[in-house]
Amino acid sequence: MKKSQLARVGKFIRPYRITRGKGFRLKDIDPADTAGLKSEDKAEAREMLTRGVEWLAEQQDMLYAQDHWALLLVFQAMDAAGKDSTIKHVTSGINPQGCAVTSFKQPSSEELDHDYLWRYLRHVPARGQIGIFNRSYYEEVLVVKVHEEVLARQKMHPSLVTKKLWRQRYEDIASYERYLVRNGILVLKFFLHVSKAEQKRRFIERLDRPEKNWKFSSADVAERQHWSQYQEAYEEAIRHTASADSPWYVVPADNKWFTRLVVAAAVVDAMAGLELHYPVLSPARRRELAGSRARLEAE
Amino acid sequence: MKKSQLARVGKFIRPYRITRGKGFRLKDIDPADTAGLKSEDKAEAREMLTRGVEWLAEQQDMLYAQDHWALLLVFQAMDAAGKDSTIKHVTSGINPQGCAVTSFKQPSSEELDHDYLWRYLRHVPARGQIGIFNRSYYEEVLVVKVHEEVLARQKMHPSLVTKKLWRQRYEDIASYERYLVRNGILVLKFFLHVSKAEQKRRFIERLDRPEKNWKFSSADVAERQHWSQYQEAYEEAIRHTASADSPWYVVPADNKWFTRLVVAAAVVDAMAGLELHYPVLSPARRRELAGSRARLEAE
Repeated sequence: MKKSQLARVGKFIRPYRITRGKGFRLKDIDPADTAGLKSEDKAEAREMLTRGVEWLAEQQDMLYAQDHWALLLVFQAMDAAGKDSTIKHVTSGINPQGCAVTSFKQPSSEELDHDYLWRYLRHVPARGQIGIFNRSYYEEVLVVKVHEEVLARQKMHPSLVTKKLWRQRYEDIASYERYLVRNGILVLKFFLHVSKAEQKRRFIERLDRPEKNWKFSSADVAERQHWSQYQEAYEEAIRHTASADSPWYVVPADNKWFTRLVVAAAVVDAMAGLELHYPVLSPARRRELAGSRARLEAE
Repeated sequence: MKKSQLARVGKFIRPYRITRGKGFRLKDIDPADTAGLKSEDKAEAREMLTRGVEWLAEQQDMLYAQDHWALLLVFQAMDAAGKDSTIKHVTSGINPQGCAVTSFKQPSSEELDHDYLWRYLRHVPARGQIGIFNRSYYEEVLVVKVHEEVLARQKMHPSLVTKKLWRQRYEDIASYERYLVRNGILVLKFFLHVSKAEQKRRFIERLDRPEKNWKFSSADVAERQHWSQYQEAYEEAIRHTASADSPWYVVPADNKWFTRLVVAAAVVDAMAGLELHYPVLSPARRRELAGSRARLEAE
């Protein structure tokens, strides 16, 4: 990707990338923001997305060949913010052999018996892979924080459930991500930031359109009661876990076309930073390949 | 266990428990030390071990019933220091349903493709369990540090292999252990501290006694060349990762009967600190059980 193109991409990332969590306020980012793009720019935005995704597919092939780095993309959001469709649009075209999506739902009783990170760590991508978490260990400081009864299911001894619990979890998550980055696994965290009004609109759409009915759950509507607690929990989590090495991207999510563009731009930017290339062969290995070729010709 | 008994146990733990790594020196602990016990006390030591192991078996049943806590016992040592036989003697009698030993050998290529902790984390015990690591993630700062070619197999990008690498690993391991302890998984780390002379004696025994031949590997003798590098690596690892919450036990290992006693004492002491008991039933649950009893009687 040329420098001029990357510079263009930067415009869609910078306002939303949080590299220092301290003092971060969710209300500073408007869910309806489109970085100056207008409705009539949608076609152009789609074209940019398509080119970005093509480029990612090429890069992923080199990531796989080089076998040094991995990418972990973490997606968190309120319901109907567009996690599934964003993941679909940004990763379609990437070779599934080098890319896996893990969706985390209710934990099993085996998982509840373990330390809370246990069920996530196993799915962290291997070198050469892109791993996508559709929900993640951040649920442990989001839904678990908002709903006390969920914490109770984790069977911690009461002496361990202190006021410091959430701070400890932020710290432990940040330490774990630092470890991953030190070992070549880049961590990009996306919060798809949707407004309460837009969520309502999308829920109603799910109710009105038969082909979307399957996506509707009345439990999701009940969760709207906890909207402000969730927003607060997100803000706190981002404050404590956004760093230069593993930034949060707070992506305006009231316009799906824009959400996808920002997420793709962030992944493109991270990949570009790796300066990937196919492995360079040593002279010895080059001679070996030439020898193999000669033997095949001589058959 | 009565207080007077625990006080006695303390005598075999205190000199070897490192709760603050800074400034620790391996040479301050004599591999031949026996805390004042003499050869003629061996029978008594064996009797203490037997009683300790019985008590552990009882405690483990409560640990399992209560389902709040777990124990992770990490064993590290030079070859022939007695890891296998210590594990055998200290855990025989414990219900295997609540106790699992994981031996870590050469990593597979799938494991090498992942971050270095990945293959260990999956085996961390669930609540209610005792997990034993026969070798552990500490190998990542021991054999990997002594043998550069092992690090090379981990495929890290050269830009990540800096002078800070080992400090980062100590820090990441310590952070991970802190996380475990915060979540109710007690971490006890044992270094079985054998002398070079005693290792030689045991190797020769393996060569001389046909029923021990299978344990001998000429690679083990080759590793003796790196003795001082290993000792240094152990000392550094202990310095950076011993803390009050997850202490190291540097256990004199020239006398097997004493090694076992110290390890058993440390586990007994940690278990006693949990003040385990069978779950106390609520009045409602008590009535429920009485109802079940009545129905069975009436059949």
